[in-house]
Amino acid sequence: MSPLGATTERGEHDEPATFRRRYAIVGLGAVGGYYGGRLLAAGHDVHFVARSDFDHVSRHGLVIESPEGDLAFDSVSVFDHPEDVPPVDVAVLAVKTTNVEQAAKLLQPLIGPDTVIVALQNGMGVEAPIAEAFPGVPVLGGMCFVCSHKVGPGHVRHLDYGAVTFGEHAEHSGGAGITAAVDAVASDFERAGIPAQRLENLTTGRWRKLVWNIPYNGLSVVLDAGTDELMRDPVTRVFVAEVMQEVLDAAAASGHRIEADFVDYMMRTTDKMKPYKTSMKLDYEARRALEIDTIYGAPIAAAAHHGYDMTRTRLLHAQLQFLDARNRGIDLDRRPRND
Amino acid sequence: MSPLGATTERGEHDEPATFRRRYAIVGLGAVGGYYGGRLLAAGHDVHFVARSDFDHVSRHGLVIESPEGDLAFDSVSVFDHPEDVPPVDVAVLAVKTTNVEQAAKLLQPLIGPDTVIVALQNGMGVEAPIAEAFPGVPVLGGMCFVCSHKVGPGHVRHLDYGAVTFGEHAEHSGGAGITAAVDAVASDFERAGIPAQRLENLTTGRWRKLVWNIPYNGLSVVLDAGTDELMRDPVTRVFVAEVMQEVLDAAAASGHRIEADFVDYMMRTTDKMKPYKTSMKLDYEARRALEIDTIYGAPIAAAAHHGYDMTRTRLLHAQLQFLDARNRGIDLDRRPRND
Repeated sequence: MSPLGATTERGEHDEPATFRRRYAIVGLGAVGGYYGGRLLAAGHDVHFVARSDFDHVSRHGLVIESPEGDLAFDSVSVFDHPEDVPPVDVAVLAVKTTNVEQAAKLLQPLIGPDTVIVALQNGMGVEAPIAEAFPGVPVLGGMCFVCSHKVGPGHVRHLDYGAVTFGEHAEHSGGAGITAAVDAVASDFERAGIPAQRLENLTTGRWRKLVWNIPYNGLSVVLDAGTDELMRDPVTRVFVAEVMQEVLDAAAASGHRIEADFVDYMMRTTDKMKPYKTSMKLDYEARRALEIDTIYGAPIAAAAHHGYDMTRTRLLHAQLQFLDARNRGIDLDRRPRND
Repeated sequence: MSPLGATTERGEHDEPATFRRRYAIVGLGAVGGYYGGRLLAAGHDVHFVARSDFDHVSRHGLVIESPEGDLAFDSVSVFDHPEDVPPVDVAVLAVKTTNVEQAAKLLQPLIGPDTVIVALQNGMGVEAPIAEAFPGVPVLGGMCFVCSHKVGPGHVRHLDYGAVTFGEHAEHSGGAGITAAVDAVASDFERAGIPAQRLENLTTGRWRKLVWNIPYNGLSVVLDAGTDELMRDPVTRVFVAEVMQEVLDAAAASGHRIEADFVDYMMRTTDKMKPYKTSMKLDYEARRALEIDTIYGAPIAAAAHHGYDMTRTRLLHAQLQFLDARNRGIDLDRRPRND
């Protein structure tokens, strides 16, 4: 039983450009909608699983506005329960990590003997519980460097970027290497016009993504500010860089080296971005639960396990926990605790 | 020339209870109004210096609501320029530290050969520039543990507490000891019904006050929260204590030991306080400049000078600088920098 058996059956050496793999995309938000639409346009057999948007999308299809070309599908295959989707080659989890406890339940019906799971999610620690629930199934993590947001049901606006970095989850910190599953999924994305990177060590990649997410997601919510404003104010600009450095130090303490000039590179990349509301800021404004556990709690715990205290990140974490709980009207006596 | 020469002239051993000293109170806000009113009620010769409230107070006097007894003065001695006040025994500076550069100018006309200066102000580093401007004049710092706010011109509402801790500024970190000036002013306050403490080392006292001010002032602004809410949420409660501990550690690194259970004591004291908006929160809501430099910048610099990095305090500082600048509409290219 090889992962993505379908590939080998149909001939791995001269795979046709029109080769179709069966994808399930669980979640029809900014991420699932955008990447699902691109895979659909590339000719793959894509099935969406959506709860709240099911009715609208089954009637009106999917629209993606993008500087790289708009896409409109009058009709797409959409299900409100994953039980109705036959087992797929690739099951893509594209829901917020605030539903992480539901992930295994959503994925269960989609998994056949050759299925690969891809978690297109933020933060750290999202793959381990999935891998535990499905022994023997390759679990990939995919980190999306994309500016996109959901305008409404079945309507995604893509603003900028779009690259995805894939790596396979491994029990040990040494990494799984670039596996056949990583290469197959990355190749599908590339053929769909999406820049893709293959990672030898997924956890290193997760830390790299957090170098951006930890300062900008948190400060954008706490200070009610866009990335451009945080970069233009001289005080917050310096502090963003300092928080980034803390993430690098935490990664290094946990055995994941990131090159020293990565902070500068991330700062320059952000300088060039269009003014942007982070996903956490959008969630906060919509009074949705914030992805605090995977973007803050998990890396803080991982670093602490290796004896490193992410002091600045912990303060942002505490502030976000307070704001998130109040924002969603959670009673003071039911709020989370860190002690 | 002894400080508070008036005391000795009039006999220091059997000073009558009705003994009158001449006070100037510069600033007619929550602090100047409350303590000035109490000194006035105790029979002292009190002259207020007020700018924006001059007209109103010169016509309508001063009203203090207080659980310890309301006070109303139909007419008080108030001046809009300190030049019109004759030299006084005690010149009390009760303006925000955001006007610190003006302090010496405001005090100048009030200083005679035997005057004592008292800075009833928040934070750290307020006495040194005053002492430099008036060589040979005793400069005291007074820390007010008081919940009061200005309701309107000449109208102060006192809610709770009221004790003042006095110490004399010294060039060296060892402290000036309990000087004659400290004792005289503290005694005046006590006779006016205000609990007063005498400090051997003013800077230690400044650090002690910052243990409260640094967490609550900052978090109340950044999280838009009252002290009660910060104490009742389990996450912020733990973080408040952690920031307090950082202030203790910074004080210790700077040569000022504070007993280890002071954090617990401050937490319990705050638990017992009525729900309270910090002065910084009130300033923020009124779009006034925040006392960031003396409550955050100065202790951060003092600790850094001794090799201690107040990481959590620095993050709060940066957040406050950003929020304060935006709140007052300061252009991005004119904002402060820390580098």
